[in-house]
Amino acid sequence: MQFHHHGYVSGDPRVLPAAGTGIDRPVELPAEVDVLVVGSGPAGMLLAAQMSHFPHLTTRVIERRSGRLTHGQADGIQPRSVETFQAFGFAEEIIAEAYNIGWMNFWGPDPDNPQDIIRTARTADYAQDIGEFPHLIVNQARVLDYFAQAAVRAPGRITPDYGWEFVDLQVTEGEHPVQVTLRRTADDAAGSDAAVTGEERVIAAKYVVGCDGARSRVRDSIGCAHVGDIAKHAWGVMDVLVNTDFPDWRIKCAINAEAGNILHIPREGGYLARMYIDLGAVPEDDNHRVRQTPLEAVVTKANEILHPYSIDVKEVGWHSVYEVGHRVTDRFDDVPVGEHRAPRVFLTGDACHTHSAKAGQGMNVSMQDGFNIGWKLGAVLSGLSDASLLSTYTAERRPVAQQLIDFDREWSSLMARKPEEIEDPTELATYYLGTAEFPSGFMTQYAPSMIVGTDEHQGLAEGFPIGKRFKSAQVVLAGDGNTLHLGHHASADGRWRIYAFADARAAGEASALTDWAQWLATSPQSPVLRHTPAGADMDAVFDVKVVYQQGFEQVELARVPGTFRPQTGPLGLTDWEKVFAALPASDIFEERGISRDGAVVVVRPDQYVAHVLPLTATDELSAFFAQHMLAQR
Amino acid sequence: MQFHHHGYVSGDPRVLPAAGTGIDRPVELPAEVDVLVVGSGPAGMLLAAQMSHFPHLTTRVIERRSGRLTHGQADGIQPRSVETFQAFGFAEEIIAEAYNIGWMNFWGPDPDNPQDIIRTARTADYAQDIGEFPHLIVNQARVLDYFAQAAVRAPGRITPDYGWEFVDLQVTEGEHPVQVTLRRTADDAAGSDAAVTGEERVIAAKYVVGCDGARSRVRDSIGCAHVGDIAKHAWGVMDVLVNTDFPDWRIKCAINAEAGNILHIPREGGYLARMYIDLGAVPEDDNHRVRQTPLEAVVTKANEILHPYSIDVKEVGWHSVYEVGHRVTDRFDDVPVGEHRAPRVFLTGDACHTHSAKAGQGMNVSMQDGFNIGWKLGAVLSGLSDASLLSTYTAERRPVAQQLIDFDREWSSLMARKPEEIEDPTELATYYLGTAEFPSGFMTQYAPSMIVGTDEHQGLAEGFPIGKRFKSAQVVLAGDGNTLHLGHHASADGRWRIYAFADARAAGEASALTDWAQWLATSPQSPVLRHTPAGADMDAVFDVKVVYQQGFEQVELARVPGTFRPQTGPLGLTDWEKVFAALPASDIFEERGISRDGAVVVVRPDQYVAHVLPLTATDELSAFFAQHMLAQR
Ligand SMILES: Cc1cc2nc3c(=O)[nH]c(=O)nc-3n(C[C@H](O)[C@H](O)[C@H](O)COP(=O)(O)OP(=O)(O)OC[C@H]3O[C@@H](n4cnc5c(N)ncnc54)[C@H](O)[C@@H]3O)c2cc1C
Ligand SMILES: Cc1cc2nc3c(=O)[nH]c(=O)nc-3n(C[C@H](O)[C@H](O)[C@H](O)COP(=O)(O)OP(=O)(O)OC[C@H]3O[C@@H](n4cnc5c(N)ncnc54)[C@H](O)[C@@H]3O)c2cc1C
Repeated sequence: MQFHHHGYVSGDPRVLPAAGTGIDRPVELPAEVDVLVVGSGPAGMLLAAQMSHFPHLTTRVIERRSGRLTHGQADGIQPRSVETFQAFGFAEEIIAEAYNIGWMNFWGPDPDNPQDIIRTARTADYAQDIGEFPHLIVNQARVLDYFAQAAVRAPGRITPDYGWEFVDLQVTEGEHPVQVTLRRTADDAAGSDAAVTGEERVIAAKYVVGCDGARSRVRDSIGCAHVGDIAKHAWGVMDVLVNTDFPDWRIKCAINAEAGNILHIPREGGYLARMYIDLGAVPEDDNHRVRQTPLEAVVTKANEILHPYSIDVKEVGWHSVYEVGHRVTDRFDDVPVGEHRAPRVFLTGDACHTHSAKAGQGMNVSMQDGFNIGWKLGAVLSGLSDASLLSTYTAERRPVAQQLIDFDREWSSLMARKPEEIEDPTELATYYLGTAEFPSGFMTQYAPSMIVGTDEHQGLAEGFPIGKRFKSAQVVLAGDGNTLHLGHHASADGRWRIYAFADARAAGEASALTDWAQWLATSPQSPVLRHTPAGADMDAVFDVKVVYQQGFEQVELARVPGTFRPQTGPLGLTDWEKVFAALPASDIFEERGISRDGAVVVVRPDQYVAHVLPLTATDELSAFFAQHMLAQR
Repeated sequence: MQFHHHGYVSGDPRVLPAAGTGIDRPVELPAEVDVLVVGSGPAGMLLAAQMSHFPHLTTRVIERRSGRLTHGQADGIQPRSVETFQAFGFAEEIIAEAYNIGWMNFWGPDPDNPQDIIRTARTADYAQDIGEFPHLIVNQARVLDYFAQAAVRAPGRITPDYGWEFVDLQVTEGEHPVQVTLRRTADDAAGSDAAVTGEERVIAAKYVVGCDGARSRVRDSIGCAHVGDIAKHAWGVMDVLVNTDFPDWRIKCAINAEAGNILHIPREGGYLARMYIDLGAVPEDDNHRVRQTPLEAVVTKANEILHPYSIDVKEVGWHSVYEVGHRVTDRFDDVPVGEHRAPRVFLTGDACHTHSAKAGQGMNVSMQDGFNIGWKLGAVLSGLSDASLLSTYTAERRPVAQQLIDFDREWSSLMARKPEEIEDPTELATYYLGTAEFPSGFMTQYAPSMIVGTDEHQGLAEGFPIGKRFKSAQVVLAGDGNTLHLGHHASADGRWRIYAFADARAAGEASALTDWAQWLATSPQSPVLRHTPAGADMDAVFDVKVVYQQGFEQVELARVPGTFRPQTGPLGLTDWEKVFAALPASDIFEERGISRDGAVVVVRPDQYVAHVLPLTATDELSAFFAQHMLAQR
């Protein structure tokens, strides 16, 4: 964590100084905003936290509810989400309070007494091998709390505007072309008069992001088709405090009994668990009657499935019966297929893809949608990029949603099988582990585009596949000899990262690295010089770091090119945290297959690897940024 | 982290439900209190956080300042303190924002150009080997903030009463025998009228703890002698933001130049550093004139010492010139040496021991004083123990203070030597590492007493020396298969821990462990039955845990004795976190030398090992607790 950079800070360093619209942020919704986010679920709150790092913009987040979410909804956090939390500064805190999924056990009918269940397999959860981030269970409400905290600590000081419902929008002309009609639903936290409920207001936005969930009205207002299965599946879900003789109460289990199926998920705090009780496919003419299933019926069903074990329910924290189909919208923005203009309205999360809860993906994919659109809006509205950048949102995220639906359909049909359909009881376990990269959130790979390079030079850094998220590795901070994760040093502040992995020469010697650094610092073709606004710090847009092959004691800081020791901020202080050395015990060059001739690895603000190039390919580096960034000088 | 135990919690689980005096805690100081803490430094704030776990008591913390500390004072956090923070719930957070000391470098005169310094040795900091806790640097103000947060989140909801100065006290008779005179110094945060400044009030306390620093008035009021060196040593200290060509700006360094000595300490946040510039011994007739040394003189001196390097100071966060001698008070409470009654007034921290800053001990030892007295006051005031328990405070802490002074005297004279007095330049480094256990805070060993057993059975658990702090090791939580540190599972909630390390038999088989568990649950001699107040949960006073030798898959929870699966809280919910298994890769039985026949390890609320006994020594266990705890039924 870096601070004191603009002068001595006495209080909590996680609270960044307010800036721009974060200074004296108005309590009331302004008549005009840059970005209007509709909905404060996982997608909307990630956006709040991200946009708060663009404090010169006015971003408001409206939410129909009168305050924070308190109960229920999703709880499965995949490792990619924990990685994302790390970038927003709260991974450690949320890990400390979450349930860590170490194991997944499988239960099926006892062949001798088929009405009884027995444990058929124990498997280590996929997260145990996949990287440094765990697979967690924690209440969606807490995830939203942490994003809210990140949003209010960042310079824009964004807090949701509770008690406002999105009604409709029109995309017109002008600087703030999206006319949005809102309606007051309730007292908001800031204390408006209850008498105003129902009052309507129109506000004008440059961009609108619909994060308004499965029944999205933003989606309706831009005429998207929500396509997919008509057949829906119903789930009884309950967060319960019980006493029980079921020995795996604190282990995630898939239970396939004669009497039905349960997905059992221990929850944070050591007592609570969530049980998803399969209520089966919903007939077409059911007309949501399944939602009337009483809690008692769900508990009874759970006890039938658990036989010979049982639960004695002491308290029900939350419960629900919900139906969900498999659907994706045809497009994630307001530009009809075939038309070519920059979009003004976007859809994220459940608003554009819905599916079952079984694979524990909903909240996770929704957050990644928000992470994808956030920095792009920031770049366009800050004048760094042309609006055409925004078309990459649908192009990148729609395929991910389609993949998710396909995975979920397969996984939930596997899970919903009757015991007699299962030949090998370990098959489910095998499938679960075999697909680990998908449910952990690390399989997404964006195709080449204006912001993703092509793979001619992938061989220089095999371990950083272009288009996939940057998989961190350990390095040593040359200035102080401390070991840290290179990827964790970056935060979700909207900046691009350029990692220069040095060739074999030591710091200061004539080398490809030294030439590259010189070029970056002085050439008119340098993206840093070309795309950093005049007057801004040299690392305002690009965070440029170097990793040497030597141990940190061999890196003589005085000889490291000045490119990697920028003097920034109002005091012009040297930044000591741009120069890294390989860790002998776990050399990043080995771990990520980086060429000993060096390489340049470009990473997007949302942590995806954008390009891999040789140190000598300065023209290509320059051209890559020129295709999506505007010249600033 | 365990929660949801008393019903579903939607918000931050670190905020415990208010209880007792924490519900509607009065803003105004009451006329009568159980415990009055004077001073909100490290000792006082630890006490605030500790006493907040005894919410049925009224504890108030008065502080002369009008609000939180903002700048300066100590910054070195030894591993034992981080371990303590872990027990108070904020180790991870403070580690994330602190500077981690990985290395310590030594600089001395260049033999060829003695007016220049060169690096003479690099050493890994002792904390790299000593355990799972790092050696940190972080502003004392932040340590106090975290304790303040812990105090207000705990059930007693304690916050300091700012703007009250301790004037004097008298120990009289009655239920609240300590009559304390206070004076209003300033507006407090709660908004009193400035006009009242100077107003005096007398309040009556059962106990008073003087945490009022080096110029303690509580010390004066109980007539303690503060004995030690008359000669004082002066230090210039500054927290500075600079640009510099000194390559070790981000590494802790001891610099012994011809021009003088600097102890250089990088600070949290990546830019700031603290420099202690040695201003030498203060002549007896100086009369504090040294304190007038201007900042410029200190900076000039620093640049002379650093030559050929230099610092260009951009901002000074804090600076001070201070003198300190080596002193310890003759006693740490109000009972004159030779008299035998239970004390009513205690001294902690700088109020009873002062010394140089060089070894970075002041804040750390002060906190351990607070940790030692806190639970004892809680136990006595809760009726669990007789007041004679309180005499162990002076008995235990005074020898620690004496050790500290001796160590500090040696260390600071080593550090203050002139270069020509130094034969082997690595000698300082060798001393520093050789003494690691002391400065890391792990050397303290309390002598046998009513709360520390004798060592007849130490051989059953060599790795848990009686009288030393419980050195944690990893285990597996049998309920969910997650690996964790056994010691970190305990929090600073005022309870005793009894760890039953099982003999080799599996759970449920006839064994010494099974017999012991049965005895603990049913025998009239059982400390749990005897010393737990009627109506309280069975784990209210003793937190009893078991560690099996088998892997967690072999621990059948249904067969584990009920002693280790208590049903507690208003819902009578099973606690799943009392049963542990050995971790195959790092077996606690091996790591801590625990007998395969099992052992009982008793740990005090302040984390010190109180006793090691065989599973069969039930009489001894019973007798141990009976010597300092009262029968409750
Ligand atoms: C009742 C329920 C139970 C669920 N259970 C599970 C589960 O057990 N497991 C699982 O994996 N997933 C579950 N989900 C799905 C999971 O919560 C979603 O995938 C995830 O929350 C999607 O995030 P989001 O940000 O896209 O939308 P949401 O979290 O749905 O957030 C949408 C937000 O927009 C607000 N909003 C909606 N319309 C408007 C409007 N017109 N104006 C203003 N605000 C509006 C809503 O109040 C809400 O706060 C559940 C969802 C629901 C609703
Ligand atoms: C100016 C200064 C600089 C220091 N610099 C260093 C350093 O660089 N390195 C280092 O290791 N140690 C340093 N120390 C020492 C270190 O801070 C102490 O060892 C440590 O703070 C001791 O903790 P404590 O809780 O015993 O007392 P303190 O932290 O001194 O706290 C005492 C508290 O009591 C309050 N108080 C005092 N008298 C009264 C009264 N009559 N009524 C009410 N409240 C009262 C004070 O305002 C203060 O908040 C410094 C101390 C001071 C004062």
